[in-house]
Amino acid sequence: MGDPAGIGPEVIAKAWAGREAAELPPFFAVGDARAITRVWDGPVAPITDLREVADAFGSALPVLTVEDGGEIVPGQPDADGARCALHSLELAVGLARSGAAAALVTGPVSKAQLYGIGFNHPGQTEFVAERFGVSRDNSVMMLAGPSLRVVPMTTHVPLAQVSSLLTIDMVAAKARATVRGLRRNFGIAEPRLAVAGFNPHAGESGALGREEIEVLEPAVALLREEGIDITGPFAADTMFHQRARAQYDAALCCYHDQALIPLKALHFDDGVNITLGLPVVRTSPDHGTAFGLAGQDRAEPGAMMAAIAMAASAAAHRAACPHL
Amino acid sequence: MGDPAGIGPEVIAKAWAGREAAELPPFFAVGDARAITRVWDGPVAPITDLREVADAFGSALPVLTVEDGGEIVPGQPDADGARCALHSLELAVGLARSGAAAALVTGPVSKAQLYGIGFNHPGQTEFVAERFGVSRDNSVMMLAGPSLRVVPMTTHVPLAQVSSLLTIDMVAAKARATVRGLRRNFGIAEPRLAVAGFNPHAGESGALGREEIEVLEPAVALLREEGIDITGPFAADTMFHQRARAQYDAALCCYHDQALIPLKALHFDDGVNITLGLPVVRTSPDHGTAFGLAGQDRAEPGAMMAAIAMAASAAAHRAACPHL
Repeated sequence: MGDPAGIGPEVIAKAWAGREAAELPPFFAVGDARAITRVWDGPVAPITDLREVADAFGSALPVLTVEDGGEIVPGQPDADGARCALHSLELAVGLARSGAAAALVTGPVSKAQLYGIGFNHPGQTEFVAERFGVSRDNSVMMLAGPSLRVVPMTTHVPLAQVSSLLTIDMVAAKARATVRGLRRNFGIAEPRLAVAGFNPHAGESGALGREEIEVLEPAVALLREEGIDITGPFAADTMFHQRARAQYDAALCCYHDQALIPLKALHFDDGVNITLGLPVVRTSPDHGTAFGLAGQDRAEPGAMMAAIAMAASAAAHRAACPHL
Repeated sequence: MGDPAGIGPEVIAKAWAGREAAELPPFFAVGDARAITRVWDGPVAPITDLREVADAFGSALPVLTVEDGGEIVPGQPDADGARCALHSLELAVGLARSGAAAALVTGPVSKAQLYGIGFNHPGQTEFVAERFGVSRDNSVMMLAGPSLRVVPMTTHVPLAQVSSLLTIDMVAAKARATVRGLRRNFGIAEPRLAVAGFNPHAGESGALGREEIEVLEPAVALLREEGIDITGPFAADTMFHQRARAQYDAALCCYHDQALIPLKALHFDDGVNITLGLPVVRTSPDHGTAFGLAGQDRAEPGAMMAAIAMAASAAAHRAACPHL
């Protein structure tokens, strides 16, 4: 459910309300049920056993309650809410890991509140990867919309630090995890990757920076030797128009905004965050807590619904080809 | 005409061919006329005096010839071509400066070829600004498409150097020039500016970088005190979807790709580069020489036509309100 004071509870409830038109599979919320009832008048079915979900789902939103959300005032995050979000996440991860749930969809959390209660991961993605014993380089955050998939190879770090984090090994690990993830979760047999340059015009042969020459080009050469269909580095500003997007299945980007700017410019309302490289499917709507909107019945559930649909699709692809 | 071996000559010729449907005003090319006749079968009218343009334009593309283009093989740039591009630019700047031409539209050049003949400006924009005695901070490169205008506050420099180039004074100078440019060239009486953060999530209050706290926030405060309608810094990835774009007339971006990625993702075929802060109007199509396409009759003239139309519109706005 993410932070109980954000828009997570509302978009989950609205996703349930739109389940039939969107053909969403049965799902249940994990978190403090009051976070939902405070912002939504629809039916909620508290559950204690996951076997109740399938029967309950037709007539109410099933909620597995984590009862420590504190006061829960929509739009006013606090430490109790952050603890509730963290405990909900931990429980949901466990349920996915055990196989009791087919996939994990996470709601938006407040990083500032989580840091305040001692959470020391950059975000939920890294937390989940650690819980599954997957190293950061081998797990990959992919953002996916209907016409574009992007992988930010670095994420929540100051932009000035990115250059020092880009290494041949890191880029190669991210690319390999992306290829495997596209096969497992999207059913793409021969994924095509494109790498974005770090500098303007991809460095113009070194005149505008050397990260392409020292890191990106050798990484691409190495990966091509391994048989991976990867091209670039390309000038990043020429990679995201319609004709260019048709040339690859995923763009590997050097930093957060290089990936997220085009994704959100094109797919603000239906972008999905999917973590590749995990033993389970994990998706998330590509938006934040939006505390300023919380409790006003104004949040759009499109991205949450897309995240649930993509989780179901990815779980089906994995079930069909468990050997990948 | 830009580099004679690039697609500049072809898109100029095609713009002339489409002049009536697009309602383009009379224009003339400056460069080696052979660069056009090599790639286009239409009528060309060599001119030596600008008073010939109006009469010639109805039945042929007027060309003021700079006769030193060398061999001119489409797709194969060389030093002679770079010299021709530079001399054409210099002449066109002079004609605009004298008032003989109402506006200047520049075709794409090869920076690598220009650097090879001793050109020591980052690009044509900086060259033109210097010729008009305008400092770099006071001239502004704006990229404009039908639904988005962006200003990259730094341009062709390695990304790792950007942080050290961002200062309160520089941001303030760019913002002031942008406001004035939007009034003079676009007729927007009270321009609204939005500033993009440098770091992911605009630094999250310093947790992900301090450029926002040390430079961008103080610059915005200073500019607001001056009465400029400027907001931000905002998380850059949330600024470029449709609803967000409606909130501002121009986005001030910290670096090249932050500005160019969304502009080209949305307006790849009709983006225009316009230099604000000059005594004359200067626009350019927002694409490169595309040597790989040259001479194949495959180049799209849309951006060149948009650049010519915007130049005419800006010249008309300036003529109507010369006091701005």
